[in-house]
Amino acid sequence: MNRTLPTVGILGGGQLARMLALAAAPLGIRTLALDPAADACAGQVAELIAAGWNDEAALAALASRVDAITFDFENVPATTAERLADQVEVHPNPRALAVAQDRMAEKTLFRETGLNTPEFAAVDTQADLVAAVERIGLPAILKTRRLGYDGKGQFRLKVPADIDAAWSALGEAAAEHGLILEAFVPFDRELSVVAVRARDGEFRTWPLTRNWHVDGVLSLSLAPAPDTSDELEQAAVAQAKAIAERLDYVGVFALELFVRGGELLGNEMAPRVHNSGHWTIEGAHTSQFENHIRAVLGLPLGDTGVRGASAMLNWIGDMPEATPVLAVADGHWHDYGKDARPGRKVGHATICASDAGSLRAKLVEVGAALNREAQVAPAIEVLG
Amino acid sequence: MNRTLPTVGILGGGQLARMLALAAAPLGIRTLALDPAADACAGQVAELIAAGWNDEAALAALASRVDAITFDFENVPATTAERLADQVEVHPNPRALAVAQDRMAEKTLFRETGLNTPEFAAVDTQADLVAAVERIGLPAILKTRRLGYDGKGQFRLKVPADIDAAWSALGEAAAEHGLILEAFVPFDRELSVVAVRARDGEFRTWPLTRNWHVDGVLSLSLAPAPDTSDELEQAAVAQAKAIAERLDYVGVFALELFVRGGELLGNEMAPRVHNSGHWTIEGAHTSQFENHIRAVLGLPLGDTGVRGASAMLNWIGDMPEATPVLAVADGHWHDYGKDARPGRKVGHATICASDAGSLRAKLVEVGAALNREAQVAPAIEVLG
Repeated sequence: MNRTLPTVGILGGGQLARMLALAAAPLGIRTLALDPAADACAGQVAELIAAGWNDEAALAALASRVDAITFDFENVPATTAERLADQVEVHPNPRALAVAQDRMAEKTLFRETGLNTPEFAAVDTQADLVAAVERIGLPAILKTRRLGYDGKGQFRLKVPADIDAAWSALGEAAAEHGLILEAFVPFDRELSVVAVRARDGEFRTWPLTRNWHVDGVLSLSLAPAPDTSDELEQAAVAQAKAIAERLDYVGVFALELFVRGGELLGNEMAPRVHNSGHWTIEGAHTSQFENHIRAVLGLPLGDTGVRGASAMLNWIGDMPEATPVLAVADGHWHDYGKDARPGRKVGHATICASDAGSLRAKLVEVGAALNREAQVAPAIEVLG
Repeated sequence: MNRTLPTVGILGGGQLARMLALAAAPLGIRTLALDPAADACAGQVAELIAAGWNDEAALAALASRVDAITFDFENVPATTAERLADQVEVHPNPRALAVAQDRMAEKTLFRETGLNTPEFAAVDTQADLVAAVERIGLPAILKTRRLGYDGKGQFRLKVPADIDAAWSALGEAAAEHGLILEAFVPFDRELSVVAVRARDGEFRTWPLTRNWHVDGVLSLSLAPAPDTSDELEQAAVAQAKAIAERLDYVGVFALELFVRGGELLGNEMAPRVHNSGHWTIEGAHTSQFENHIRAVLGLPLGDTGVRGASAMLNWIGDMPEATPVLAVADGHWHDYGKDARPGRKVGHATICASDAGSLRAKLVEVGAALNREAQVAPAIEVLG
C-alpha cells in the first residue's frame, strides 16, 4: 500500500490490545502491539513485536513506526513510558500512569479531588502493619502498592493473629513494591464509571456499570446500573471528571467505586480500557475501545449512549460452550483466542436487550443452558 | 498458541474479506485470505496468501489449513471452487457460485422459482444481437454473461443504430464470457434482500434495503426500506428463500430486485456478503459478516433484527474527511485501508438513528459537512 495509515502502538498484547486493534481497523487505523510473550493474543489480529518492557531497541522501533502509543497493560515501568513520551505522543501520559499504578498515590488523589475512600495506610515494615491494623481496625486487606490486579498480591486480615501470616505472604514484596493496608468496607454495591477524555479536554462517560467480583476477579457487569439515582450517577461522573482533569488524562479509564449507604467510596482507577466496559462493544453506540483509539489520536469522541440494557459475563480459566450465547437473540460471543489456564481471562459474552425484563429472561435462559446459574444470579435478582 | 482455533479460508482479499475477518475474530475464529494482490486490504487484519486462482500449490496449502472456504470475490474460476470442494467444505457450493456467475443461468433460475425478470436473451453473435433487439426492444443493456460487476462490461443501447457500437465494445468478450441483452426496465425502486441460510437449512433475512446506484455503482442504502408493504417484503423474502433452497445455498447472499408498479423483478444475485448489507454492522443485532462466518462453520445464526434506521454511504475513488461522520451521534466510519483510485470502493459510512426523522436530520448535517448533498438527497427525500 502506498497510503500511510495512522498507526497506534500498544504496550501489551493481551485481550485489551486485541479489542483495541479490532476497533481501530474499521477506521483505517493500524495497530502495532509490543509484548514479552510471542504468542500474545493481540498478535492474531495485529502486528506484534515480541520484546520486553526494557528492550530499548524494540521500544525505539515501535516509537518510530507509530503516531501515538497507549497501553493494554498499565504496569509497564514508568521509565519506559517516560522515555517513549520523549519520542512520540503517549496517552495516557506517564504521570497519570504512575499515579494509577500506585495504590497510595491513587487513593491520595481520590481524597484530594473530594472522593472519600476506605481508610488506608502505607506499610513498609511489620511494625507499620501492626500500627496500621491498630488505627484502621479489622477486617482489612493488605495489598502491594504496585503491580496488583485481579485480586493478585492481596491478603485479607480478619483478626490480629493474621498479621504474621500476612507479613509472611507479602513482606518480601514490601521492599520492592511497597504495601498498603486498606479497611475492608462492607459495601452495598460495586459500580464503575467508564469514561473517556479527549486531547482537547472533552469528557464523556458511558452509563454507570454495576459489577460483581468472584475471588477478586470481575464475573458479571450490568449496564446501565439498575436502581441508580440521578444524584449518585452525577456524583460519580463528577468525580471521574475531576480526576481526569487533575491528571490531564487522555483516553479511556475506569473508576471503580463502592456504594455504602448512599455514599460513594473510591476503590481504584484503571488507566486503560476496562473489563467493566466490555459491554459497550455491542451495548453502546461507540465502544470504549473505539473511543480510546479516537482519543489517543485526537479524533472526535463518539456517542456513548446505550442501545438498551446489557449484561457481560466473564469467562475465566476456560471457554464455555458458545452455542447457547450464539443462539440467544442479541447475544454476543468473545473468545480471545487464548489457551485455557486457571484464573486466566479467556473470553466474555455480552447479552443485550431492549429492556430489563427481556434481559432478565435471556440471562435465565443462558445461565441454565451453560450451567452458570450462580454467575448470572446477581443480575437476575437485580433485574427481577 | 497450543489451542487450535477454527479457521475460515477466503478466496479474495478485498474489503469483504477484511470485514469478514473483523467479524470472525471476536468469535475466536481465524481467517486466511488468498488473493493475487500481495497488498490486498484484508492482509492488514488477517493472514494473506498472495497467489493466483489457478495456483494449485497455494490452493492446496489454503485448503489444508482451514475448516471451510468461502468467497470475497465470486468470479474465481468454477473449477477452482470444485477442486477445493473435494478437499474441504466450500460455502456457497460451487454449483450455486456457477449459477450466480452467469447472468443467463441466474435469470433462468429466477424465472423457474417464480420471480419475474426483465426480458433477456443470450447473445453470441452480432446476428443474435440484432434478433434480440428486435424481440426485446430498446432501450436495452448488453452485458457480459460472466465477470461483470459494478457496471463494468456493460453497454446501453438506446436506438438500433447503437448495435454496431455495442458490438464493437463487447463483441470480443462474447467468445470468452458470452453476452446477454436485457431490457432496460424503468423501475420505481431498487431493493435488495440480504439473506443467510445455515447448513441445516435455517433461513433468515435482514429487513429489505433500498438502494441507489450512480454510474452502476452502489452509492446509498437505506434500511429498513421505507414505505415497503408487508406484502412486498414477504414476496421478496419468499423469492430469496426459494432461490437459496434450490441452490442448497449456505451463507449470506443478496438478491437485487427492481420494483415496477408494485411488481418485483429479479435483477441479479450476489453469492456473498454484499455492499447493500454493510449497514448491518452497526444497524442490526448480528451483521451479515458475522452471520456468514457462522453459517459457513455450521454455527447457529444470529439475530437479524435491527436497532433502528440506518443509511450507508459508499465512498468511491477516495475517502472524504472523516470528522463529520465521527462527530455525528451513532455515525460509523469504515476505511478499507486502500489507496485512492478512480471508481474504486475505498470505504463507507453508516449513520444510525432510532427513527426515520432523526436519521434524516443526521443525513442533512453530514451531507452538508461533506459537500455530499447529492449523495444523501435521495434518502432525505424518502425519509422526509
